[in-house]
Amino acid sequence: MDKNAGAVGFIGIGAMGLPMATNLLAGGFALRVWNRTSGKTEPLSAKGATAVRNVADTVTPGGIAITILADDAAVESVTLGDSGIAARLGAGGIHVSMSTIAPATSERLAAQHAKLGSTYIAAPVFGRPENAEARQLVVCTSGPAAAKERVRPLFDAMGRAVFDFGEASGAANVAKLCGNFLIMSAIEAMAESFAMAEKCGVDRNQVAAMLTKTLFASPVYQRYGEMVAAKRHTPAGFKLPLGLKDAELVLKTAGDARVPMPLAGMIRERIIAGLAKGRDEMDWSALALGVLDEAAIK
Amino acid sequence: MDKNAGAVGFIGIGAMGLPMATNLLAGGFALRVWNRTSGKTEPLSAKGATAVRNVADTVTPGGIAITILADDAAVESVTLGDSGIAARLGAGGIHVSMSTIAPATSERLAAQHAKLGSTYIAAPVFGRPENAEARQLVVCTSGPAAAKERVRPLFDAMGRAVFDFGEASGAANVAKLCGNFLIMSAIEAMAESFAMAEKCGVDRNQVAAMLTKTLFASPVYQRYGEMVAAKRHTPAGFKLPLGLKDAELVLKTAGDARVPMPLAGMIRERIIAGLAKGRDEMDWSALALGVLDEAAIK
Amino acid sequence: MDKNAGAVGFIGIGAMGLPMATNLLAGGFALRVWNRTSGKTEPLSAKGATAVRNVADTVTPGGIAITILADDAAVESVTLGDSGIAARLGAGGIHVSMSTIAPATSERLAAQHAKLGSTYIAAPVFGRPENAEARQLVVCTSGPAAAKERVRPLFDAMGRAVFDFGEASGAANVAKLCGNFLIMSAIEAMAESFAMAEKCGVDRNQVAAMLTKTLFASPVYQRYGEMVAAKRHTPAGFKLPLGLKDAELVLKTAGDARVPMPLAGMIRERIIAGLAKGRDEMDWSALALGVLDEAAIK
Amino acid sequence: MDKNAGAVGFIGIGAMGLPMATNLLAGGFALRVWNRTSGKTEPLSAKGATAVRNVADTVTPGGIAITILADDAAVESVTLGDSGIAARLGAGGIHVSMSTIAPATSERLAAQHAKLGSTYIAAPVFGRPENAEARQLVVCTSGPAAAKERVRPLFDAMGRAVFDFGEASGAANVAKLCGNFLIMSAIEAMAESFAMAEKCGVDRNQVAAMLTKTLFASPVYQRYGEMVAAKRHTPAGFKLPLGLKDAELVLKTAGDARVPMPLAGMIRERIIAGLAKGRDEMDWSALALGVLDEAAIK
Repeated sequence: MDKNAGAVGFIGIGAMGLPMATNLLAGGFALRVWNRTSGKTEPLSAKGATAVRNVADTVTPGGIAITILADDAAVESVTLGDSGIAARLGAGGIHVSMSTIAPATSERLAAQHAKLGSTYIAAPVFGRPENAEARQLVVCTSGPAAAKERVRPLFDAMGRAVFDFGEASGAANVAKLCGNFLIMSAIEAMAESFAMAEKCGVDRNQVAAMLTKTLFASPVYQRYGEMVAAKRHTPAGFKLPLGLKDAELVLKTAGDARVPMPLAGMIRERIIAGLAKGRDEMDWSALALGVLDEAAIK
Repeated sequence: MDKNAGAVGFIGIGAMGLPMATNLLAGGFALRVWNRTSGKTEPLSAKGATAVRNVADTVTPGGIAITILADDAAVESVTLGDSGIAARLGAGGIHVSMSTIAPATSERLAAQHAKLGSTYIAAPVFGRPENAEARQLVVCTSGPAAAKERVRPLFDAMGRAVFDFGEASGAANVAKLCGNFLIMSAIEAMAESFAMAEKCGVDRNQVAAMLTKTLFASPVYQRYGEMVAAKRHTPAGFKLPLGLKDAELVLKTAGDARVPMPLAGMIRERIIAGLAKGRDEMDWSALALGVLDEAAIK
Repeated sequence: MDKNAGAVGFIGIGAMGLPMATNLLAGGFALRVWNRTSGKTEPLSAKGATAVRNVADTVTPGGIAITILADDAAVESVTLGDSGIAARLGAGGIHVSMSTIAPATSERLAAQHAKLGSTYIAAPVFGRPENAEARQLVVCTSGPAAAKERVRPLFDAMGRAVFDFGEASGAANVAKLCGNFLIMSAIEAMAESFAMAEKCGVDRNQVAAMLTKTLFASPVYQRYGEMVAAKRHTPAGFKLPLGLKDAELVLKTAGDARVPMPLAGMIRERIIAGLAKGRDEMDWSALALGVLDEAAIK
Repeated sequence: MDKNAGAVGFIGIGAMGLPMATNLLAGGFALRVWNRTSGKTEPLSAKGATAVRNVADTVTPGGIAITILADDAAVESVTLGDSGIAARLGAGGIHVSMSTIAPATSERLAAQHAKLGSTYIAAPVFGRPENAEARQLVVCTSGPAAAKERVRPLFDAMGRAVFDFGEASGAANVAKLCGNFLIMSAIEAMAESFAMAEKCGVDRNQVAAMLTKTLFASPVYQRYGEMVAAKRHTPAGFKLPLGLKDAELVLKTAGDARVPMPLAGMIRERIIAGLAKGRDEMDWSALALGVLDEAAIK
């Protein structure tokens, strides 16, 4: 991929998109950026990106567009239709879809792109905003091999590792949902166990520290373990309503594939309880507060 | 602690006890060993341990006894009564209780010891037989400080780290139950997510590999992730009925403390399903097979 | 309502629609009937109904249309658009929507009707095909009072009782979902308890008989209790995939209203397991078979 | 059974025992009564019963003793040992055990009685205190046929129906646990559905009324439906901690028989949440309040 071959379209300048685009600029890529609410693009313009008014203007025929947006509907709305990026990309163009969306949505989008001669690559990422800033994202990919190879330098500028799941359009989205579900499950499990510790008179922070230094010495347990143990769920790296979205994507995907996931079902209800109690602005790890409520722990 | 001050009593020569006692012998400790079924002590006798017929003969007044047995009842039966180790240990004696048992059982045993002048230390361990062999156990301790200090060299000969949870008799048992519950939860979560992956046409081993190399790069996820992904649950490092015992200890302890643990409840039922299907000889990770059954995956 | 004022449109001649329409004919109402697959209307034509080819032809401007279809999408597809019944009904027309659909769908449809001058009445029914035949349906209604009064004679010709839930478009649908959820819950509860009885050596049929003659002497427990006790789930009165549809309507409706329903979540997963095992043609009470599977009961 | 053949021992004068004993007196039976706290027997003494100080004095050799106590431990404590009723009853004596206890406890007690020549009959009852007063209890029986026949007049004086489950000692207890579990499940299901109704703007009392007049027109749904709909859980007919005891009896019995009961597990955790919040003095239907808490309904 020739960095000078033309600007890459970058669509979605949110908590994740901003540091990701910043790293692309730092890596020498020219960007044409767009966000639904336009003010968000300013920090990128200041670093040399070109902000455009219409989403289709981010891309050039045969070029590359990256989307990192809140949900399936947002990705579909910028992609499809006469003023969408698929029509503009056309033959030889590549849409790198980095949002956490349903595998079925990826399949639908891939089919649309195929009709127009462009290629769809699913490339959802693991990591929170601070990981994005630190170029420490983990990228999962799926889609046609040649296209994945062409866009690989972009991933290297944003993340620390790329895992490929083959050619099926939605495969990387499945892998991403697996991971997000494991994170939620770990939060619920830690919340329950630390609540037991606390009401048995044992220091919950000490339990968290012991477990996350030994058996569970991994990034997810360390980061979320500290939050759950400390009962601290602000500021949000990823808000609770997005957790609901992901739990529902998991349940829908699994349901369509006829896979019962009772733990996923339990977690969805836990998140809904948190939203019923007005925790919309908290981090998704705030699902853990439901355990405290039910155990009557302050 | 003077290694030559008298043999340490070592009670329970099972899958865990054997490598632990072996390491104590290798570390220069003299041992008097006992097992309910006596043949099990032979490998230790061959390395210099003295096998005794009556459990009380493992200990000398004022000495040290280690128990590592299958359940609460077994620990109580060797400890209490006229022919139990508590009566024999007497003033200055220490009982190092390394089994996974209820915090309430530790409290009861500690109270009995106190009446007889001896001291009870809870010191449950994390690790499977291969970790015990490799001196890689993680030891959690609680009980009177002076006694913990005296027996510390024993832990150093068997494990790689000691985490202390203070003076309350059952505190270390609570921490141990927290950890075991997190392991079961991780198994269930992985089982559900890998089932989703498989029925969506994504390679479950690849998903497991990606997740356990990145976000979940920890011993528990790596070991159990590989087993769950490969649907391989024999040979057993820790059998499924012991998993039921632990799930029930968690639920009893949490219930008594008025902490609802719906995920623990769900996992207990999952384990019971596995036992209903005759998986008694499998590893406790075989609870994952229930997910495959329900998803009609071979 | 003048029975001779013009034919009523009747849309959806399935397991429920056929006996309902038959009772309307028997009650003296003229009907213009339509079904997606046209052969189904023949028994009604034989009794005097007029079968039409296009769904809009079932209705006359200012007239009445009844829909009793499989799901939300089906109701929306016959209602909306230029060739839908809403456009044809126009000012003064009434759409009596008797399917089990989401309250939100009723609200959307009511709003569309309002724009066109017609009125939408939600009127979902409780009862299985045999109850429909016996004119024993229970009808729940909501919507504008005048319209409900005008169509009341139709309900009297099809059911044994009408319960009104006020003017809000979706209120009757909420009540219907409450009832369907209680039925599913009762099936799951009976399945679990009868499994316990059986494996404890107690006759499950005898337990079912005792309970449904005393504390649970109600139609739902008697009918489903007999099926669950006998492990007999064919022929289907209401197929398992429809049970999934209803469980998902409950979860969506409750989720949008921020009401966690963990039992509904558990039941959805139970139904999915049944579908994974190929029970699509069985009655929805076949969710009970999942309990037998997990308990390893034949 | 000859009413004049000697007084019947009646042990346990609580919320249920008092009206049951009162009805026996009214039916012409002579009673010797005992309660752990002795004041409770006064209303019965006033009606002709003989209050005794030692529980064994309630019975005569070869006579009949009825126990209706809070839990398994209480029944065992009055039955076993030198000063227990089993030793006193001796050859030809009958112990009619009417408490809700584990089937396994019945088996253990039956075996003890058999050794002493007496007979154990399990005869747990369905009904709340007001049903006991109204002689409307439902009695489930199991045990040796001749003994059941001899004590039958007692049941007729206390209840409206007797259902027999054969000769196995614990069979009637299994049936009783099935029923209690169905009640708890119905409470949870109603609580969830009425919460959905309320947050969707539909009158929860109206939904309850409709359902309990039609599909769920049975005593349990009518009584508890009204309580759950009205959010009124005092005064207690059966307290929440007794609900926990019963849920745990169900789980223990099912677990030992290798029957997974995920709904029972969920309900246990729900009850524990209620107790964590201090609802110990409320009716067991107060488990429904947990649903309101989680949905943030007042």
